Amino acid sequence: MGRAMGLAGLLLGLVAVPAVLVSTSLRHGAPRAEAEPEPSGWELAADALPEDSLWPLPQRVRTSPRQLQLAPSRFQLVHGAGSSAGPGCGLLQDAFRRYYEYMFGHSRRRTWGRGPLAARAEPELLQLQVVIEAGDPGCDGHPQLTSSEAYHLTVTEPVAILKASEVWGALRGLETFSQLVHEDDYGSFLVNESEINDFPRFAHRGVLLDTSRHYLPLKSILTNLDAMAFNKFNVLHWHIVDDQSFPYQSVYFPELSDKGAYSSNLIYTPTDVRLVIEYARLRGIRVIPEFDTPGHTQSWGKGQKDLLTPCYNRGQPTGSFGPVNPVWNTTYNFMTKFFKEISSVFPDEFIHLGGDEVDFSCWKSNPEVKEFMKKQGFGIDYAKLESYYVQNILDIVSSYNKGQMVWQEVFDHKAQLKPDTVVQVWMANNYTPELSRVTGAGFTAVLSAPWYLDYISYGQDWKKYYSVEPLNFPGSEEQKKLLIGGEACLWGEFVDATNLTPRLWPRASAVGERLWSSSNVTNLQDAYKRLTSHRCRMLRRGIAAEPVFVGYCAHEARGP
Amino acid sequence: MGRAMGLAGLLLGLVAVPAVLVSTSLRHGAPRAEAEPEPSGWELAADALPEDSLWPLPQRVRTSPRQLQLAPSRFQLVHGAGSSAGPGCGLLQDAFRRYYEYMFGHSRRRTWGRGPLAARAEPELLQLQVVIEAGDPGCDGHPQLTSSEAYHLTVTEPVAILKASEVWGALRGLETFSQLVHEDDYGSFLVNESEINDFPRFAHRGVLLDTSRHYLPLKSILTNLDAMAFNKFNVLHWHIVDDQSFPYQSVYFPELSDKGAYSSNLIYTPTDVRLVIEYARLRGIRVIPEFDTPGHTQSWGKGQKDLLTPCYNRGQPTGSFGPVNPVWNTTYNFMTKFFKEISSVFPDEFIHLGGDEVDFSCWKSNPEVKEFMKKQGFGIDYAKLESYYVQNILDIVSSYNKGQMVWQEVFDHKAQLKPDTVVQVWMANNYTPELSRVTGAGFTAVLSAPWYLDYISYGQDWKKYYSVEPLNFPGSEEQKKLLIGGEACLWGEFVDATNLTPRLWPRASAVGERLWSSSNVTNLQDAYKRLTSHRCRMLRRGIAAEPVFVGYCAHEARGP
Repeated sequence: MGRAMGLAGLLLGLVAVPAVLVSTSLRHGAPRAEAEPEPSGWELAADALPEDSLWPLPQRVRTSPRQLQLAPSRFQLVHGAGSSAGPGCGLLQDAFRRYYEYMFGHSRRRTWGRGPLAARAEPELLQLQVVIEAGDPGCDGHPQLTSSEAYHLTVTEPVAILKASEVWGALRGLETFSQLVHEDDYGSFLVNESEINDFPRFAHRGVLLDTSRHYLPLKSILTNLDAMAFNKFNVLHWHIVDDQSFPYQSVYFPELSDKGAYSSNLIYTPTDVRLVIEYARLRGIRVIPEFDTPGHTQSWGKGQKDLLTPCYNRGQPTGSFGPVNPVWNTTYNFMTKFFKEISSVFPDEFIHLGGDEVDFSCWKSNPEVKEFMKKQGFGIDYAKLESYYVQNILDIVSSYNKGQMVWQEVFDHKAQLKPDTVVQVWMANNYTPELSRVTGAGFTAVLSAPWYLDYISYGQDWKKYYSVEPLNFPGSEEQKKLLIGGEACLWGEFVDATNLTPRLWPRASAVGERLWSSSNVTNLQDAYKRLTSHRCRMLRRGIAAEPVFVGYCAHEARGP
Repeated sequence: MGRAMGLAGLLLGLVAVPAVLVSTSLRHGAPRAEAEPEPSGWELAADALPEDSLWPLPQRVRTSPRQLQLAPSRFQLVHGAGSSAGPGCGLLQDAFRRYYEYMFGHSRRRTWGRGPLAARAEPELLQLQVVIEAGDPGCDGHPQLTSSEAYHLTVTEPVAILKASEVWGALRGLETFSQLVHEDDYGSFLVNESEINDFPRFAHRGVLLDTSRHYLPLKSILTNLDAMAFNKFNVLHWHIVDDQSFPYQSVYFPELSDKGAYSSNLIYTPTDVRLVIEYARLRGIRVIPEFDTPGHTQSWGKGQKDLLTPCYNRGQPTGSFGPVNPVWNTTYNFMTKFFKEISSVFPDEFIHLGGDEVDFSCWKSNPEVKEFMKKQGFGIDYAKLESYYVQNILDIVSSYNKGQMVWQEVFDHKAQLKPDTVVQVWMANNYTPELSRVTGAGFTAVLSAPWYLDYISYGQDWKKYYSVEPLNFPGSEEQKKLLIGGEACLWGEFVDATNLTPRLWPRASAVGERLWSSSNVTNLQDAYKRLTSHRCRMLRRGIAAEPVFVGYCAHEARGP
């Protein structure tokens, strides 16, 4: 074992990760065979269980050894009797077409007869009937924090039935059904008779993408939305702008991207943004944009004069700028108009307002800011000034009937938050007491601290992400209910279109299962087996997910 | 700053990497601006120096501010007067076509007039004339350890001249010339008048790829060979088989891959192997195959019965197998025939015979092996048995007139090596004394220990690889001369076609410059600037190299 691994082990030890997560490793990086499942079980072997490739694992699965065969030329995804949705439901029609492709598309090259199935004993499954039970199926609406994603799936001869209260549950059930269908060595498509009752453990299951440190082409974002749907994520937290660049093209303030984007073609036009939102909606994914202020705003200053605080040195302006200037009225006039646009462009009920990592040194250097501090009676407590600013922004955004997400500092610095504010806990150091404090104060929390996927390390770090128990913090039952979910964050300092997909998947899948499946789904060996199958499936569906460990995918040669 | 980064800093501290390498980092992973060059200098700005994008930096560069313009419709790469190579030199003809594409190909969409250049003051560069000075230019040969890669390039109006003793130097000079040519904002191609005298510091500059832990499609290997040429690497160390799979299709022993490959289509046929070798040759890259024995051979046992040692427990065979059986004559009969094939299939003068990480426990359990130990008088020193085996293999391979590379254990365990054996030093713990020992014993060494690129970590780890000084080990001048180079190793446990390219590049570029450029080229800020440009150039040429840090590539939208 090389020294590097010894130190990595030490590192893991220091952050108190259980020893089981530290793979022992030979020099060539190969954990010894006994530490891992046998590398031969890559594909769904003849004796494998149908649930061996389900990810995330549904809440309740009952499967029978009895297999049904599907004929791609005959099998149909249809609206079932009594469904409030019909052929006019574009969202479901689109999903039917998509899932048909995922199940059968990669074997299209072969010719399908319309005659009887190959000489097999299995009876045939003819249809999947989808029944939406709510009066209004919600085909044209947007998913929300309170949307129902529950579904009930029965697969029996001759038809499978998928029932859900809303279309969002139907989308999750379609994903599960498609995961149950598998291809045998002879190219036959099979599904075991089964019954699945499923619903998410947490309502907010997000992936953060950062399009400021590096621009991400639209195609990368859409591919990632596909992968999110495969993993039952339901929130794209779009960290769209930051210090480094401002790719969001504003209608009211086009100079923000004209001058703040890396380049004139590295922007998201209103059309691009609408496309992302619609593509996400069709997959049951909310898009929460983050416009982080007052820090992380250097790129805003390029296209909006007099927005940032001029920094001083020995009584003279240095030419540098700090956070948004909290003193001038023009700041709030700008923000009022800007967030009016954002509130209308992004349909989600929530906007993320950032509020993290405000560096006070520039404010402290500025005479006008100091004067204002005195007038307001803030003394030298610049956290009060920060809260003053944030308070104003929160009020502005509230006036547009939007809920708010903020990073934990906004809570820590004692801004007066509206009761429905969602506080995102990100600081890795001691995040459980923070969860206690936030929920103890009655606020809703989203956990990201253990899931900063930009911090890469050698080996199977998915196990580390997987082994987090989000509710393992001190607090009452009421407090636990206030933790509504989590987010896998892939900050963009070292990520762009060249490495986004393999870096994010299947590592984020570990977070996906943790947030969807029951808290008792914790077996690493079982997870390894399912995750390996799931990764091969993602590959087949066009997601360049990196390998979990040594081995190969049975169908990889056919993949896109 | 998050705790994770604090620990990462500690980790770096423990392995005694200078503090300059530890980037301070905010939560979003963004080093503060002052710790890094300004993120605005991404492209070759108007006031940038022409050498700002050279990678690896040539030994001697003199450039003039005087710029020449190139017209894609007129500019020619040609054989110069007095060259021993002419239009019959397929290797150079192919390189001319390739480098023309790299310089101008991506702007093809625009229409080029044949008329005068745009209203610019610059005079025109009409040709690059390539002159091979040796009597035999070596167009049809293979590059060797002793090949000359030196070249001399002068760029002056109206023609540039590239002189090299052998074609291998011309290939390096073509790469350098193509790096000097840049495109301005108006789409004009410019080059500064310059003179470059260049040669490699080390003769062996390798990249190890592992096609056993994961199969790599031919295309991935060829793409990597392109990237290697862009970085002036000259050895592909092809770790082609290992425990996990045997993708090499042997003519004499086809069952090895029939049964030992992951799957029947995940193999390298003789045609594939020839293609890799020829593709590499055209780029001045040697292909050294590694057939690692007696350990790391589990996959060999599947297609070759009675090759591996049966393991015993309480006097009974367990059904498991250990390393190659060093006792039976059949083993050596097999190896004699097998390496006869390998010696003929791979034209390089060297074969890598592995010899690392032999686990003695199975040998110790086997009664026949124990009996043999007694007979040979090895006592209980199984390292002697290992050396006995290796010795036999070395003799077999020597009889085919092949030189040998081995991992350091073969030297450590005191096998009697032929004087020209190359010992590869890989153990990260205290590698400098090992370099002293190997070279002190008069053997040639190749260094890999600090360059295990499969061990990923957060941040700009290229600086760590870059800051290694290979000759910084105790020893005489004679000993220093015996260190002939190094290799960046990308073991395949967590690497396949989905993430190979962005994981390897531009991290391996740091190793490439360390092995090519002068020992005094160590400035990290300068390297950062050049590496960032170089990475964008690789992207433009179809290599999905990951970003060095925040920012964008000026021409990335045009990239493939």
